[in-house]
Amino acid sequence: MRPWKSKIVANSPLVSHTWGVTVSSLNRDVCILGLGLIGGSLLKDLQASGHSVFGYNRSAAAVTAATSEGYAADTDLAAVLTAAAKRDALIVIATPMPAVAAMLDAIATYAPTCSFTDVVSVQQAVCDLVVERGLQDRYVGSHPMAGTAHSGWEAAQEGLFHDAAWVIGFDAAAAAFASNEPVPPQWITTFVDVVALAHTVGARVIPATAARHDAAVARISHLPHVLAEALSVVGDQGGALSLSLAAGSYRDGTRVAGTQPALVRAMCETNHAALLDALDETITLLSEARHTLAAQPPSVEILAEAGYRARTRFAARSLADGKTRPVIRLQPGADDWIHQLMHAEHTGAVIDIFAPRPENSGTHPNEQPDTLR
Amino acid sequence: MRPWKSKIVANSPLVSHTWGVTVSSLNRDVCILGLGLIGGSLLKDLQASGHSVFGYNRSAAAVTAATSEGYAADTDLAAVLTAAAKRDALIVIATPMPAVAAMLDAIATYAPTCSFTDVVSVQQAVCDLVVERGLQDRYVGSHPMAGTAHSGWEAAQEGLFHDAAWVIGFDAAAAAFASNEPVPPQWITTFVDVVALAHTVGARVIPATAARHDAAVARISHLPHVLAEALSVVGDQGGALSLSLAAGSYRDGTRVAGTQPALVRAMCETNHAALLDALDETITLLSEARHTLAAQPPSVEILAEAGYRARTRFAARSLADGKTRPVIRLQPGADDWIHQLMHAEHTGAVIDIFAPRPENSGTHPNEQPDTLR
Repeated sequence: MRPWKSKIVANSPLVSHTWGVTVSSLNRDVCILGLGLIGGSLLKDLQASGHSVFGYNRSAAAVTAATSEGYAADTDLAAVLTAAAKRDALIVIATPMPAVAAMLDAIATYAPTCSFTDVVSVQQAVCDLVVERGLQDRYVGSHPMAGTAHSGWEAAQEGLFHDAAWVIGFDAAAAAFASNEPVPPQWITTFVDVVALAHTVGARVIPATAARHDAAVARISHLPHVLAEALSVVGDQGGALSLSLAAGSYRDGTRVAGTQPALVRAMCETNHAALLDALDETITLLSEARHTLAAQPPSVEILAEAGYRARTRFAARSLADGKTRPVIRLQPGADDWIHQLMHAEHTGAVIDIFAPRPENSGTHPNEQPDTLR
Repeated sequence: MRPWKSKIVANSPLVSHTWGVTVSSLNRDVCILGLGLIGGSLLKDLQASGHSVFGYNRSAAAVTAATSEGYAADTDLAAVLTAAAKRDALIVIATPMPAVAAMLDAIATYAPTCSFTDVVSVQQAVCDLVVERGLQDRYVGSHPMAGTAHSGWEAAQEGLFHDAAWVIGFDAAAAAFASNEPVPPQWITTFVDVVALAHTVGARVIPATAARHDAAVARISHLPHVLAEALSVVGDQGGALSLSLAAGSYRDGTRVAGTQPALVRAMCETNHAALLDALDETITLLSEARHTLAAQPPSVEILAEAGYRARTRFAARSLADGKTRPVIRLQPGADDWIHQLMHAEHTGAVIDIFAPRPENSGTHPNEQPDTLR
């Protein structure tokens, strides 16, 4: 048994009062910093589901729009965070990456005990800023895999996260596990709250440490943006006839090139190391295809076959992403729960939070805690 | 005045009996060789619009399915083409590229006077096979820019071509123009018929010679397939976590990698020269982005800005593709009509066929023909 186990479970009120049920709703106010596409959509979803939620945004225009639509929002960051501290709210950093450091400083100053998360598309850089400030015990990183080519409050919409994958980090737990230290109790509470936040808006939670998240999104989110930009340019260089003939394959392949360049740059440049690996693999594949296409007879067999196999695997996996997909149920703090997180990360599995009732102990493989409340 | 003008107009019954009206319907039976996605969809659309249409397919399964759904189809190519000859049908070659040569040989044998077109995604290679056989006076190449990732009769659907761009070639006319020769009368009749075929199924006609068509589709159709294959592979190489996190940008960017590899190979390998140019431009852009991303500070500014500008131009052009977009009206055989085709090719403009009534001559810039019927 890991040394921190019984202590954590006994000390975690959110876990101890949810024995026997899946923790799928959040019992805490939420404070959202940044009301763009992601933050704004989260605000709308949470309010629609009856949660007490309020937000900060730098631009007055978005705040005015949100307020006129019946949401609580303000441009005064200090006032918003002071309210978050008073209400012990879960804070969500939903600004672009360049503003994250300032948000962390403000949280440290005005909400010095609140748990917080983020929804930034690159996680290691946020983690590093959090650790620099010594805030890691109350921070759980997260990244909902949802978006459109549009941005800003006006693009925010209810239902954006429904059935989307939502990555939730466990770097602090993995680090504690590696050094045989107990996981901080507030971290576990925060983890459970952030999972519940994702579940509240209908997302499926997949755990991943920051480095593995960043490596994965370089391949399936940042690289697609880079390739879409390149395809846009090469199509455009074909002139008016090319653009007139462009149909589904070009439209789909360039769609995310319609994203504001500043957002693309923030993602790609922040995640440059992982993206370089993915980009190098891509350039190698294309150069090999170029080589076989210039040969006699011209051939793209290797790439076409490999791409089709890969796409088929992805399609099969996507089909399996529905409600029938197995869910790994975790009891935070129980034996092996960090092993389970690592297993879920490795297999890209969805997790749920579960704490068994004492009378059900025979049906649950995890050892029961020694004390209840 | 070009030397062939009055002769052609006077000798072309299809043009001369449509004075004053847009030629938007086809007054001829249609014979389709190959009942896959494109040929099958064309068969369905034509029959739905009341045309007499029949087809050939090599595989008995598709013929059985089509026949059971009430369409006229047969696996006997000689019999089908003999019927086409008897009915003076317009023949449409809708097989994959590797079967085109055999179709042309069969047409030369069994339907030696019929006009014909094709719907193959690469045009120069078809043109070359046609010219090798001396069939160019009754051939007008064409390529509807419509498709899905699925193929075969089971993927055929009504409405596939609605509002799609449909390229129609004019290589024989351009060659005649260049050498100051008259355009063959049967070629003009064929051209008008193929335009009417495209209009019958709701497509917008854009003229382009085979070489320019192939250069354009390399950029906006074949390159997107190659990039989708590469993106599929690189995402897949990220393992289960990557595929679990993949969302809209990866799904859209890899969609056409779900196309059967044999079809991708047929397109890309047949159009290898033009695709190599597009692929080289892409590799250069990606290598430059790789270079700036590895620098300090990492940057993808140049590519992100250029890609966004290009996509914005494409989106604006797509919006303009609706009914408000200007249409260039041609009177086949009239003064300057080949100039107009070249202008439309250069600007990617949509064309329509129009022959003015004699009494309207004051309102039409084209000179009137000397004789009517």
